[in-house]
Amino acid sequence: MRGLRPTTLGVIGLGAIGGSLARQARRAGIATILGWSPEPAERAAAARDGVVDDAPGSAAAVAERAELLVLAGPPAANLELLTRLAPHLPVGGLATDVGSVKRAIVTQAATLGLGTRFAGSHPMAGTHEHGFAASRTDLFRGVVVYVTPAPGGTAAAREVAHFWESVLEAQAVIMDAALHDAQVTFTSQVPQIVSSLLGHFLATRTPPGATLGPGARDTTRLAASNPSLWTEILLMNRDLLLPALRSLEEPLGELERALETGDAQAVHAWLARAADWRREIER
Amino acid sequence: MRGLRPTTLGVIGLGAIGGSLARQARRAGIATILGWSPEPAERAAAARDGVVDDAPGSAAAVAERAELLVLAGPPAANLELLTRLAPHLPVGGLATDVGSVKRAIVTQAATLGLGTRFAGSHPMAGTHEHGFAASRTDLFRGVVVYVTPAPGGTAAAREVAHFWESVLEAQAVIMDAALHDAQVTFTSQVPQIVSSLLGHFLATRTPPGATLGPGARDTTRLAASNPSLWTEILLMNRDLLLPALRSLEEPLGELERALETGDAQAVHAWLARAADWRREIER
Repeated sequence: MRGLRPTTLGVIGLGAIGGSLARQARRAGIATILGWSPEPAERAAAARDGVVDDAPGSAAAVAERAELLVLAGPPAANLELLTRLAPHLPVGGLATDVGSVKRAIVTQAATLGLGTRFAGSHPMAGTHEHGFAASRTDLFRGVVVYVTPAPGGTAAAREVAHFWESVLEAQAVIMDAALHDAQVTFTSQVPQIVSSLLGHFLATRTPPGATLGPGARDTTRLAASNPSLWTEILLMNRDLLLPALRSLEEPLGELERALETGDAQAVHAWLARAADWRREIER
Repeated sequence: MRGLRPTTLGVIGLGAIGGSLARQARRAGIATILGWSPEPAERAAAARDGVVDDAPGSAAAVAERAELLVLAGPPAANLELLTRLAPHLPVGGLATDVGSVKRAIVTQAATLGLGTRFAGSHPMAGTHEHGFAASRTDLFRGVVVYVTPAPGGTAAAREVAHFWESVLEAQAVIMDAALHDAQVTFTSQVPQIVSSLLGHFLATRTPPGATLGPGARDTTRLAASNPSLWTEILLMNRDLLLPALRSLEEPLGELERALETGDAQAVHAWLARAADWRREIER
């Protein structure tokens, strides 16, 4: 990596995230962008749109030319791709990924001897659509991106953070992978599950012909997220997630008891606690 | 009521709902609109804006001139207002309310001997802001409004339904009050509680400085709703609500077991059930 901007960027996975990343790198003037997708149609679309300079049929052919290689597949595929592509990375080349759980891939990088050449990334951007067709140029602009160093990889993490900031106009925050995973348990995974839980409930309970208002629609919007992707995310983080899910039972039980006993003051206090918090985060 | 449009409309409560109702009735050409609010400032604002022709200091003074009286206060206040204003309704005058639970007020109307002159209403419109300042002209346009007859009050319900359709451009659906309350338990109250539960959880668990993405924000948007209003709604409907809340535990437990045993297929099926439903309702 020369300074903060790679001359040659490799993007593995050309879906909504990888495709958007390539689009914005193109616009930021990165000289050469190589892309790979397991889907020949996505490779063809990315080359046709001029988003990548080349989209060879082999991921290794991308890796071996990349000063910075970005793994933009689902989390389990990224783990496997890192192992497969590690021997192909050029001397001095760096790698990162864009998955939303970070302990597993950072550990994997260290195991592969890539500790000083890999840092995890998690951009807080996404879309419910997927595939290259859902990619767009401004997905990362102004977005927070967590960058998680591998052991001994502080310098690599700084380089990766600079890439996000200078090329993708994101706001990079360097954070320990374990701390990151604990944080997204609360801020992302529990919200996903709560939304899906309500979706589950409404799928069986909504009377035929009943109208769902904007409130029920907003609360279940996340439930439409990709089940395959989220299965991987949730399973990789289940050690942190399970205690968090169990701790939802306590406040729910509190409200149930207040309703059972008709305790208006307790019901009000329970609702007000959440309302105060929610109004506060809008400020 | 002469045909479908009252010559004189009375609106008790000039908050976001009552104020919006008066605004749209004004625009629809209702000849005389009288309003009352317990807040002198709201009465003054409604009169100053020309939304009402008169806003006397006494609710009875509004009731006694109204061909149609709309109670637009919170649910508990509406019950009390109906009792207080019943003796003041003119011969042949009709009354309705706009609360989101309907069994209690319909029963109250029957008890007061107003069964043939009252029908409940529940417009599926709202705003998280409140007070007259949050009122607007188009709040009810195209919105579904449930109209729930009192015993023996089918003709009155038809009149009230016509009022919503011809004056407020809403889409009226006449429905039994008990059926209505069962339906909103699922489509409105459980979503409110699930959103507040997540708000409760995040209020204690969000690490300082952590970024909440659009998903967590959407899922908790309802949590900002008015705690006083919702305390009344939840308590009035607790007989239906408590079993519904308890039934959330089963699907949550299913997911927890799938995560504990690392059963990817079961986690996927669980997420996909909710995702399929959520995608379907967007069609």
